[in-house]
Amino acid sequence: MQWYFVAALLTVLTSSQGILTTLSQSKGEYKYDYATVPFLAEIFKLAVSSLLLWKECKKSPLPKMTTEWKTVSLFPIPSVIYLIHNNVQFATLTYVDTSTYQILGNLKIVTTGILFRLFLGRRLSNLQWMAIVLLAVGTTTSQVRGCGEASCDSIFSAPIQGYMLGVLSACLSALAGIYTEFLMKKNNDSLYWQNIQLYTFGTFFNMARLLADDFRGGFENGPWWQRIFNGYTITTWMVVLNLGSTGLLVSWLMKHADNIVKVYSTSMAMLLTMILSLFLFNFKPTLQLFLGIIICMMSLHMYFAPPNLLLDKPLTVKLDEEKLIEVSIDRRTLS
Amino acid sequence: MQWYFVAALLTVLTSSQGILTTLSQSKGEYKYDYATVPFLAEIFKLAVSSLLLWKECKKSPLPKMTTEWKTVSLFPIPSVIYLIHNNVQFATLTYVDTSTYQILGNLKIVTTGILFRLFLGRRLSNLQWMAIVLLAVGTTTSQVRGCGEASCDSIFSAPIQGYMLGVLSACLSALAGIYTEFLMKKNNDSLYWQNIQLYTFGTFFNMARLLADDFRGGFENGPWWQRIFNGYTITTWMVVLNLGSTGLLVSWLMKHADNIVKVYSTSMAMLLTMILSLFLFNFKPTLQLFLGIIICMMSLHMYFAPPNLLLDKPLTVKLDEEKLIEVSIDRRTLS
Repeated sequence: MQWYFVAALLTVLTSSQGILTTLSQSKGEYKYDYATVPFLAEIFKLAVSSLLLWKECKKSPLPKMTTEWKTVSLFPIPSVIYLIHNNVQFATLTYVDTSTYQILGNLKIVTTGILFRLFLGRRLSNLQWMAIVLLAVGTTTSQVRGCGEASCDSIFSAPIQGYMLGVLSACLSALAGIYTEFLMKKNNDSLYWQNIQLYTFGTFFNMARLLADDFRGGFENGPWWQRIFNGYTITTWMVVLNLGSTGLLVSWLMKHADNIVKVYSTSMAMLLTMILSLFLFNFKPTLQLFLGIIICMMSLHMYFAPPNLLLDKPLTVKLDEEKLIEVSIDRRTLS
Repeated sequence: MQWYFVAALLTVLTSSQGILTTLSQSKGEYKYDYATVPFLAEIFKLAVSSLLLWKECKKSPLPKMTTEWKTVSLFPIPSVIYLIHNNVQFATLTYVDTSTYQILGNLKIVTTGILFRLFLGRRLSNLQWMAIVLLAVGTTTSQVRGCGEASCDSIFSAPIQGYMLGVLSACLSALAGIYTEFLMKKNNDSLYWQNIQLYTFGTFFNMARLLADDFRGGFENGPWWQRIFNGYTITTWMVVLNLGSTGLLVSWLMKHADNIVKVYSTSMAMLLTMILSLFLFNFKPTLQLFLGIIICMMSLHMYFAPPNLLLDKPLTVKLDEEKLIEVSIDRRTLS
């Protein structure tokens, strides 16, 4: 499978995730406990990965599986980072409103690029760095609060702590992604075996979160396992399956492509969601969405297009005094 | 003189033009007839060019001056295009509001690129085309109507005629620029001699406009030459001198650089005006201005930076198993 096919699929599924989540609400409220969704998605990912590993084990050569504790012990770390991230996110929201938080979230694109360079040692050209900054600018542009929106607070009016926590949040989110890529590419272990380790710890952390919620609520509604499927509809199950599937695709991309591909994929998904929302939820098209889409498309082309395609000018070959013909030379075919 | 020095000066002067024009108003109104400003600026440009040509004539070799009617007759054409453009602009404003008109005006950047390619036969790389589109997107982004602004009409709600006239207006404006560049580069005539021809026709067309205004107003306030300096203050004179100077710089750029340089220069001026207005007129900084500035800076770098600078990745030279050093190779110094 080619990485761009997986990336395109991830874009479509991530985008439908937003739509499905909105559709799963009734009258703007969740009738189910939203915290159960990621838990069940982890279970789904664990089940799928186990099945695929089992199938792999029946073929020869046997899949490579490192089982020494030194390696296994690295797999809970992404879950720990996400746990810290969730708490930082919570703290940030006490200083800034959700709309400002969402806009600060685009910094994640830039921090991913920086950590990609620092921790994974990948080199990017100036043009690729510019593309990454433009992707962040493009997604932010599409989110600019337009005329007639409810909250009119300027993004520049939040207290300094809000911005600092927002930046920290973007760093942690990027770190989780970069660390996962490091884990997946660290050795030649089977992807499914790596997934099983990742999702087993993920399941435990999600379970712990549900239990923590119960303790915080004083077990008023009973323990989480007694009411886990309360309020679930077919749409809720689709949200679970969708979240699980996107997780598996991200995992594949971390192994066979990289974090930047994932970042592009999810940014495009955000724009796709906004376009679909125009039709599904009768939103008005805004100029900022239109501009954001153009910027992100340019960024995509700048980052992934082969340099020759970007720089070759059509050459003018002078045949005689009057006649000019245009010849485009692709250097790749010459060298 | 280097073109980038002239371009930077043009940016500063164009930007102060906006500020000066605002300062020349008293209580938000013009106490003078604004149509007299471009007329006097043409006179100023004509005087300066004549003086410089006269100085050039005293040196040897004598400046080259083509005086045959076939060439001279081409010089009123830019004025004619501007005249048509003004009327199209007027018609457009009956369909769209000024804010939408201003946003449609950014299309001029793209139409200039297209006519530059079509009429002057200049080749641009894909990256340069993308830079031009991004410049238009960046200036538009900075103008997105924010939260709490007076007019909340969507830019997509104007009648189709409005957009068509807006596009026509952008084409005419670009055509005037491209045609002037063609005129200036057509032969090796002295720039000052070319200017004199251009501004003589310009003076006549502006005079005709003042007269037309008088006829339209039924000579209520007497003919224009009797009240030409009415309401003039020192600031108004600065507006005149500034407009004249920017005209001379544009002329120089058309001869020694090109339309794309001019477009970048005036787009940067627009952003600079918005930044200065924040300080001078106590405007609130907006997220869209901040994003627009980043986009335009990226575009500037993409268009003008040498390709090697954009594409070279720092190379990693493996010295031994453990140690990696980073070497950046500039291909220009090698080839």
